[in-house]
Amino acid sequence: MKFELLDKDTGTRARRGRLHLAHGVVETPIFMPVGTQGTVKSMTPDQLRDLQVEILLCNSYHLYLRPGHDTVRRFGGLHAFMAWDRPILTDSGGFQVFSLADLRNISDDGVRFQSHLDGSAHFLSPERAIEIEQAMGADIVMCLDDCLAYPATHFVSEKSMQRSMVWAERCNTHFRAAPGRQELFGINQGGIYHDLRKHSIERLVAMDFSGFAIGGLAVGEPKPLMYEVIEQVEPHFPANKPRYLMGVGTPVDLVECVALGIDMFDCVMPTRHARNGWLFTRDGHIVIKHAKYKDDPGPIDPRCECPVCRTYSRGYLRHLFVANEILSSVLNTIHNLFFYLDTIRRIRQFIEAHRFNELLAEVRRQEFRDGDEIS
Amino acid sequence: MKFELLDKDTGTRARRGRLHLAHGVVETPIFMPVGTQGTVKSMTPDQLRDLQVEILLCNSYHLYLRPGHDTVRRFGGLHAFMAWDRPILTDSGGFQVFSLADLRNISDDGVRFQSHLDGSAHFLSPERAIEIEQAMGADIVMCLDDCLAYPATHFVSEKSMQRSMVWAERCNTHFRAAPGRQELFGINQGGIYHDLRKHSIERLVAMDFSGFAIGGLAVGEPKPLMYEVIEQVEPHFPANKPRYLMGVGTPVDLVECVALGIDMFDCVMPTRHARNGWLFTRDGHIVIKHAKYKDDPGPIDPRCECPVCRTYSRGYLRHLFVANEILSSVLNTIHNLFFYLDTIRRIRQFIEAHRFNELLAEVRRQEFRDGDEIS
Repeated sequence: MKFELLDKDTGTRARRGRLHLAHGVVETPIFMPVGTQGTVKSMTPDQLRDLQVEILLCNSYHLYLRPGHDTVRRFGGLHAFMAWDRPILTDSGGFQVFSLADLRNISDDGVRFQSHLDGSAHFLSPERAIEIEQAMGADIVMCLDDCLAYPATHFVSEKSMQRSMVWAERCNTHFRAAPGRQELFGINQGGIYHDLRKHSIERLVAMDFSGFAIGGLAVGEPKPLMYEVIEQVEPHFPANKPRYLMGVGTPVDLVECVALGIDMFDCVMPTRHARNGWLFTRDGHIVIKHAKYKDDPGPIDPRCECPVCRTYSRGYLRHLFVANEILSSVLNTIHNLFFYLDTIRRIRQFIEAHRFNELLAEVRRQEFRDGDEIS
Repeated sequence: MKFELLDKDTGTRARRGRLHLAHGVVETPIFMPVGTQGTVKSMTPDQLRDLQVEILLCNSYHLYLRPGHDTVRRFGGLHAFMAWDRPILTDSGGFQVFSLADLRNISDDGVRFQSHLDGSAHFLSPERAIEIEQAMGADIVMCLDDCLAYPATHFVSEKSMQRSMVWAERCNTHFRAAPGRQELFGINQGGIYHDLRKHSIERLVAMDFSGFAIGGLAVGEPKPLMYEVIEQVEPHFPANKPRYLMGVGTPVDLVECVALGIDMFDCVMPTRHARNGWLFTRDGHIVIKHAKYKDDPGPIDPRCECPVCRTYSRGYLRHLFVANEILSSVLNTIHNLFFYLDTIRRIRQFIEAHRFNELLAEVRRQEFRDGDEIS
């Protein structure tokens, strides 16, 4: 994989880059919408292309259980299966398996777990995770890692990080045996402890990964702590490889973390919030079901240029939500994804202008932040 | 309203026509997808336009209860509310109200009923029905009629038909006071009795309606009886006005009833069946959830040229359905609506070629009919 570092901001660590992948080129910074079960919920591939989505994330855990990675392989891989011809990234399934709590049992070998669908027994090892991801055929695949809960002591965090590093080596070895056209990313772990994070990334850099992710954040720690962990570990990441912050975050998080040197993001927030009627605007969010929108002829966000804001009123969108209509999820998802991708477009523009601090200042001085509802 | 009778088949009563309405031209025969709550379930207006949908049907009952016809009026009518710039037809709400069974009470004045949503009390009279439909602003509006259940005796059917005719007169009078750019259709009733159907249409023709519907069919009577009622009453309909068969039917019904002189149809079948995973093909239907489709790389119907059949496999569509994904409803609806509209295109072509009997013969000799599943 070729990663071009195109430009750097002067006042922050923000970077403009370009990833050359098997199914196309991805500009960075990038936000990857999540297509958990082989579909970004409620979106057709055409709608995603219209939104200028460049790369999707799909979840190996869900697709391994249903329809099964062998079925996906028989269809020619995820791209053919879901009719998406642009790049895809798959996670390893680790995060989902570790979230099963009572249904899983971890050892140095791997994770034994029960399906959340039917209770059937499964075993996920580093080698098995790679085999599953190779069957899916995504452009970028992730190592299996041990996903630490928050809070965790230094002792527990170190043990977990060491296991993740051993697994990263096993994933890498297994992957190199037949790498194909895929790229493998390693995942930095170590909880909130700088020495562990530093040790982890040094171990990973010594292996032959195409890019590096930061895992184990946005799992309940305070937001300033998350930013601090990234700020401390980022200088140890090689400049010539992409950095991917997994599972993050709000639109403001994107701006803050790009300023800390992050290139790639994924998060279910825009799509999940859309289905729950929580819609992003530059001034905060609106909860579309509220009665005050019943007769409101205005768009979700007067400054938004998405097709939903150019076409539909808050009143109609409220009606669709209250009436439990499928079109509610469709239109809300288009708006929220547009908002995220528009944020990414603005991020790129401010980096290229070497004025990223201005964008940072703008999102920091907003009266309303991501978590606040417009009154 | 101008209705042009363009052409007539030579071997059947099939007709090609053209309706000139406030929001555009509609070719007949026509099938109207149903947008119950101000949206054709799971479809964006863009997707409907791509499918070449010419006119939608919306339900006054549902939109009167939620968001309310006054709200719709404040948004500038249904067209502006739902961002649909082509013609719309609204029913009167009568059929839904009569379906409420224990929740309604009918008198000569009108119908007292309770909302199925919150139990609130409402009264629907012929005048009130017209006011509601005028607030919505559809191109074609329907009279309030008394909807008879099947089976019903001649005595009961006559009483019900007479009430419908009185209500038709009241609707017409109220409508003529401020007709605007809308067109009012009368509804033929009389159950399965030819003398009552004939009396009803003669009464309606004496009034000033833009078109005539046949109501009270497809309510449980045997299919041959439905065809027979239409065949008997059709000669009493004026040739220069459109005929609309309400709530019908399967694709084969469309062909059979066009042969009997029907111009317009609406039915929830393509959209509702789509959401339940029942997909139409020229050889019968398939139930997409079946395990046999898990690894099936073929399209729903190899002869279908819809975007879903050109893009997705049965295996992927089964996966979406089993995984309860919204995209399942979206793609299945596109396919089923395309199938109906393609049937309409073929109907028009065979009329124009004066070879409609060939199409009739084709659908009659098919080994698999609408109700049969492909084994």
